[in-house]
Amino acid sequence: MLGSVMDDVVEPPAEDFQLARVLAALADPHRLATVRFVAEHGESWCGQVMEEAALPMSKSTFSHHLRILREAGVLTKRIQGARGYTRLRKDDLDRRFPGLMDSIVTADPEPAVR
Amino acid sequence: MLGSVMDDVVEPPAEDFQLARVLAALADPHRLATVRFVAEHGESWCGQVMEEAALPMSKSTFSHHLRILREAGVLTKRIQGARGYTRLRKDDLDRRFPGLMDSIVTADPEPAVR
Repeated sequence: MLGSVMDDVVEPPAEDFQLARVLAALADPHRLATVRFVAEHGESWCGQVMEEAALPMSKSTFSHHLRILREAGVLTKRIQGARGYTRLRKDDLDRRFPGLMDSIVTADPEPAVR
Repeated sequence: MLGSVMDDVVEPPAEDFQLARVLAALADPHRLATVRFVAEHGESWCGQVMEEAALPMSKSTFSHHLRILREAGVLTKRIQGARGYTRLRKDDLDRRFPGLMDSIVTADPEPAVR
């Protein structure tokens, strides 16, 4: 089990990932931006993700988005000192849904310029 | 433009596809089953999809799911006689989000047996 984090969010083991739930977690522009940021930058301080991925929201809203991503199995969080760090569970996701995260991270999420 | 269908659903051109919206359309077990069925069987009569993909719902609920998939750009519908036929917009999806549909169609959507 993962989940020795200091909050009440349960991060599922890879065997319990559900595709529809992973897709629902990714189906939001801000959550997509979060995932794409940590996919590119590796494990990141949560405050840094909010700032550098330019997510215009309160800390509590960002925490809510992180919770959805963690409960689906997309991200994991680690506490060190007073700070929370998050990273993509790339190996687990690749094992359960081969190719999915690569296609999502490399896709152009917005309509093409015409 | 697509969309010479005999209803009020607007099917967007591929250039207007939005990743978050496509993921949201796929983020439901019944819609996933629908997409996986037509990915495997090609263009199908809508009644056949409901029956053979074992979707336990009313026709109107199925129509609602089809609408969400069509408005996101995942499926297209064609009317012939009194029947509606639907198929996956695989080429358009592959062009905008390479690898995404292949990973979703081939993935094991449910938790692995332990």
